[in-house]
Amino acid sequence: MGLRHDGDDVWAVVGRRGTTTAGVFTRSRFSGPSVELSRRHLASGGARAAVVVAGNANVATGEQGRRDADELACLVGSAAGVATEEVLVASTGVIGRPYPMDLLRAGLAPLGPPGTWQAGPGDMARAMMTTDTVAKVARRPAGAASVVGVAKGVGMVEPDMATMLAFVFTDAAVAAADLDGLWRRAVDRTFNCLSIDTDTSTSDTAVIMASGAAGPVAPVELSTAVAEVCLDLTLQLARDGEGATKLLTVTVGGARDGDQARRVAKAVLNSPLVKTAVHGADPNWGRVAMAVGKDRADTDIHPDRVVIRFGDMEAYPALPGPDGLSHLAALMAADHVDIEVDLGIASGQATVYGCDLSDRYVRINADYTT
Amino acid sequence: MGLRHDGDDVWAVVGRRGTTTAGVFTRSRFSGPSVELSRRHLASGGARAAVVVAGNANVATGEQGRRDADELACLVGSAAGVATEEVLVASTGVIGRPYPMDLLRAGLAPLGPPGTWQAGPGDMARAMMTTDTVAKVARRPAGAASVVGVAKGVGMVEPDMATMLAFVFTDAAVAAADLDGLWRRAVDRTFNCLSIDTDTSTSDTAVIMASGAAGPVAPVELSTAVAEVCLDLTLQLARDGEGATKLLTVTVGGARDGDQARRVAKAVLNSPLVKTAVHGADPNWGRVAMAVGKDRADTDIHPDRVVIRFGDMEAYPALPGPDGLSHLAALMAADHVDIEVDLGIASGQATVYGCDLSDRYVRINADYTT
Repeated sequence: MGLRHDGDDVWAVVGRRGTTTAGVFTRSRFSGPSVELSRRHLASGGARAAVVVAGNANVATGEQGRRDADELACLVGSAAGVATEEVLVASTGVIGRPYPMDLLRAGLAPLGPPGTWQAGPGDMARAMMTTDTVAKVARRPAGAASVVGVAKGVGMVEPDMATMLAFVFTDAAVAAADLDGLWRRAVDRTFNCLSIDTDTSTSDTAVIMASGAAGPVAPVELSTAVAEVCLDLTLQLARDGEGATKLLTVTVGGARDGDQARRVAKAVLNSPLVKTAVHGADPNWGRVAMAVGKDRADTDIHPDRVVIRFGDMEAYPALPGPDGLSHLAALMAADHVDIEVDLGIASGQATVYGCDLSDRYVRINADYTT
Repeated sequence: MGLRHDGDDVWAVVGRRGTTTAGVFTRSRFSGPSVELSRRHLASGGARAAVVVAGNANVATGEQGRRDADELACLVGSAAGVATEEVLVASTGVIGRPYPMDLLRAGLAPLGPPGTWQAGPGDMARAMMTTDTVAKVARRPAGAASVVGVAKGVGMVEPDMATMLAFVFTDAAVAAADLDGLWRRAVDRTFNCLSIDTDTSTSDTAVIMASGAAGPVAPVELSTAVAEVCLDLTLQLARDGEGATKLLTVTVGGARDGDQARRVAKAVLNSPLVKTAVHGADPNWGRVAMAVGKDRADTDIHPDRVVIRFGDMEAYPALPGPDGLSHLAALMAADHVDIEVDLGIASGQATVYGCDLSDRYVRINADYTT
């Protein structure tokens, strides 16, 4: 519709009557009207449609922004034959500019009844890309049903409750409360363990919709399929982080508990010095030690109990010599760098997902709106 | 002595009998033997000498690292004619490599009595540079006495108790307890408000030594001079951040309290998206709103009460039009970008100091040890 420079930039979906929906949203204090509206409509219980706008976040736009979000839900609801309160809205793009409502009204006017809507998952994933370079889609079977998800997000990504934008669809039949529970568990171990650049978006939205068309399936099959789709999308998001040239995974074990494991893993994953070393395949493993030691709240972390590995190679306390450093540089030149840290305290464990920091990240973001 | 590629890389200083000393150090859990030794020697009360090694941090080097630090203090102490326990040690450089003790022993052997030591502040500042591009020295008078400081630190800089390495010297006479109090206050408002890249060094050390040669001076004069020297050094450190092309200052006012003001100011200062926008002079002020909203703990921050300014220009809630954005881009092209945020809650206030994020930061750190 012309919100971005090229082609498709808005998509909508509506589930059949009886569709259950669960969603989690950013906890940013500067969340915008899209997130506020979606949170409200989801709480009212009947949500079964969604519209996604790329190129404009509609955040920090004041009262006008709120009115525009309401009108957008109304326009899509009337085309879809559902009430405004049944429509969720998600937006991504520049902060602080009002929606171009003339473009949106003109673009949505020709929208016929849902039976004529034709976009598949690939189209949806493509239509919500901003600086994404690939469309992110994942599918898994779940008994007689299937699960398909789409996601976007390459910068301003350290989701607090969800990632930038992720939508997962299934034709399994599942009660709303059960769907909410399995969704929160899946999101917590996948999208919430992702960080591209430590910046938490004002627009993070992760929604699952279950139409019920395929009838009920075994809960464990559905949970597993949803978790796998979310992990698949999370890895696709990490690999396509702005300027990223490789996937970085950090696993911390032996922690006091899961929270400490995740906090330390994020400290390593988010350290710009670790990320640049990974980018340059510089075997400067000491930066991992630095990042493990950063949080002064972790008074139970002691260097004498810590072990640091890259893949299967121990860097600390082994202190690699020249041959070891060459081997480490080779491991770090791969397109997936895996760092493992054992804190030697107890059995808490967490894995987090991210990418390297390249000069291209800087170039992409130094000139984003100009 | 050959620890770095070029010339001088070690310096030492000894104060006359009666010199008082105060110091603060990194709170990293991975702090090294230099910091441990200095903390211990400072606590014992008699510290009046220091040795600084650049090019090797002596961190994550185990028992060998502890023995090497002790030997270094002993070598300098015997040349200076003071006990080992009177010597502080500070180190900066690569983590995880043992000191080249043969080089250090050979280099320190010809060191004569302190009367023959000749380095001035500029020599000291230069000798501890790593990727620093300029030597950082600051001076202020304090009544009949004077205060001079030297500092280094361009990467791995978000000091938690102090900056990478900063040493301040005065000939004022001041009791150790008073010196400790004025030093902590000065450090807290200057070095502790600095962030280059969010990574907290394992070796942060900030020490002040007062020889007493000029006699006592009015406490407020000395406090002011020390605070000004620290602020001067902090601004020099920020401007010389790795890859930095401009100084970035962020002031948050109207906060619930000083802690909230500093936390929000750091969130803006450390946002890679704000830092890259500043680098590219991209008037994408919405990223400041994003960063203000990041911390979900700040439930009292509400967009309707927030005001965001660049210099004297209001960006939010004013929402600049095309002319405003051009003016904003011009402000952001200056070599000092000043962002001010008013939270509209109460009167808490804080200013923090940093720099932009450039592609050169990435290049410097992608190839640091190779």
